[in-house]
Amino acid sequence: MRKPTIKDVAAQAEVSLKTVSRVVNDETGVHARTRERVQQAIARLGYLPDQSARSLRTAQSYAIGLLYDNPNPYYVIAMQNGVLSVCRESGYGLQIHPCDSSSPNLANEIVELVQHARLAGIVLAPPMSERQPLVDALVAQGVRLVRIVSAATDPQGGSACVYVDDRDAAYEITQHLIQLGHARIGFLWGGKSHGSSWERHKGYEEALRDYGITIDPELVVEGDYSFDDGFRGARRLLALAQPPTAIFGSNDEIAAGVLAAARSGGLNVPYDLSIAGFEDSPFSKQSWPPLTTAKQATEDIARHAARRLLDEIREQPGHTRNEGFSPELVVRGSTAPPRPKA
Amino acid sequence: MRKPTIKDVAAQAEVSLKTVSRVVNDETGVHARTRERVQQAIARLGYLPDQSARSLRTAQSYAIGLLYDNPNPYYVIAMQNGVLSVCRESGYGLQIHPCDSSSPNLANEIVELVQHARLAGIVLAPPMSERQPLVDALVAQGVRLVRIVSAATDPQGGSACVYVDDRDAAYEITQHLIQLGHARIGFLWGGKSHGSSWERHKGYEEALRDYGITIDPELVVEGDYSFDDGFRGARRLLALAQPPTAIFGSNDEIAAGVLAAARSGGLNVPYDLSIAGFEDSPFSKQSWPPLTTAKQATEDIARHAARRLLDEIREQPGHTRNEGFSPELVVRGSTAPPRPKA
Repeated sequence: MRKPTIKDVAAQAEVSLKTVSRVVNDETGVHARTRERVQQAIARLGYLPDQSARSLRTAQSYAIGLLYDNPNPYYVIAMQNGVLSVCRESGYGLQIHPCDSSSPNLANEIVELVQHARLAGIVLAPPMSERQPLVDALVAQGVRLVRIVSAATDPQGGSACVYVDDRDAAYEITQHLIQLGHARIGFLWGGKSHGSSWERHKGYEEALRDYGITIDPELVVEGDYSFDDGFRGARRLLALAQPPTAIFGSNDEIAAGVLAAARSGGLNVPYDLSIAGFEDSPFSKQSWPPLTTAKQATEDIARHAARRLLDEIREQPGHTRNEGFSPELVVRGSTAPPRPKA
Repeated sequence: MRKPTIKDVAAQAEVSLKTVSRVVNDETGVHARTRERVQQAIARLGYLPDQSARSLRTAQSYAIGLLYDNPNPYYVIAMQNGVLSVCRESGYGLQIHPCDSSSPNLANEIVELVQHARLAGIVLAPPMSERQPLVDALVAQGVRLVRIVSAATDPQGGSACVYVDDRDAAYEITQHLIQLGHARIGFLWGGKSHGSSWERHKGYEEALRDYGITIDPELVVEGDYSFDDGFRGARRLLALAQPPTAIFGSNDEIAAGVLAAARSGGLNVPYDLSIAGFEDSPFSKQSWPPLTTAKQATEDIARHAARRLLDEIREQPGHTRNEGFSPELVVRGSTAPPRPKA
């Protein structure tokens, strides 16, 4: 196949060569709509300007970005591996960008990043993906993106997304503990900037309500998705006059912290205390006892998100659709019926 | 200094210009030994083939690559974060590329990757970084790189590098176990494609020898840098007629597997069995008991490597130098004197 030239781009976009050149070199004096038409023609034809380093620098590269803000190495690596598997099939590179999601200037920072690195598009992970004003600002600036969000149903917010039903999975974990005979079930929050934290908390409360168990605010502790907050939260719950007989940590890192707190307090897990996590990270299988958790297909989720993004980049929207994922309950040795009262 | 030319390479390697050109362009018809001699001459002289150099440089983007082949999420994330911190200061993006280091066509794959993604340079992690012919081939093709390798002293191989003295740290861990009173000390290997595995094994043997303890091959088990191999290896050692009283796993993942094996066998750590790891990953602090290990400053190592690479890219070699890192012994609750014999 003949390599597309600047003339092909001009013909396709119905503009002059000078206009194409201006767009390619990122010069001013081109109307936004015209610029977009030229960029679409460039993308459609796969035109790669290669006359000078400068023109290359302004052109889009074969790289996408993964933007995340998460302290959990297992989660981040699974996300990366999922996106990378799709990049490899498609000849795209992956740039990674850990973000500070609390930065007040985030939208501008991301736009600058995308322009500077000439990213063809980005996979936006929670919690950035769950802020509608941020997403709207990025889309308005022409950033192609796919979001990964926590939601029970398709949020249909206009931009491409993959959604994960954390609420239902948290409901199942809580129900499992209730069915074992637990009535005092502690809950340790993940970071409140993450939609998943709110959804998991909702699932916990809904299960308690459905089974007629009164919600005791004393049993619910706020914190982050981290081992340390799991440890601290569990110590606080275990020091109560009426401590819980089971603790549900919002992810496996938190549950690992609960396990350490139980051990440091001389408790036998699961006989003195049942513990459940969320994620099914490698740790949940390697700990002793192994953790009851919800299996979250992070790599698949990331893979689907990357496919969705590449279809957007190639302007084949609708080729793949928004897809929902439902983490599944995995029962292991860290949960058991509570000790009968003496 | 005058820039070396293709004639210098031909003179040094004692071959014709045509042969050098064939090697540079990766054409067939050159004997393997001749090819290697040419590549060595290219590396020694720092010769950069003009055409590759030109095409690489015009195609260069503001992105560098991190190439690794390691199953350990904590290690990979620490490497990424170290490189990213330097990228951020310098306006470079980071592309990540997990490799299959056993691929027979690795040099060509990496060159293609660098050209396709227009990377300004790459950070090469073990085990790829430790294969001189691969490194020589990449340098000969004009790839700018920095290597991270396991070595007690500066390997001075021509290309920029950061080296880590695994041998000395492994010696210290073994010495610590000997000084506690252990004489039967098991050793679990990491993957043999990694130089660090060999260096750590050497440190273990040297310490035993220095303290006059006979090396018992029965106590040494081969495997990979993984939890599963730690578990399997420990089960094998603990089933011996004369089991070890201490086990040194070549990284923390292996040591975590040993811990699980000890628990599944009803052993009390550290009283029935002492366990040491290597790396000081977050897991080593979070396990129960926390692990004695060697603190390896992975993020600092990666940071220094990235700085070294950017200096090469900006053609300021010598601005930063090859630097050595020495992991340090960290004593925690998983090691104690052996039980007195009944």
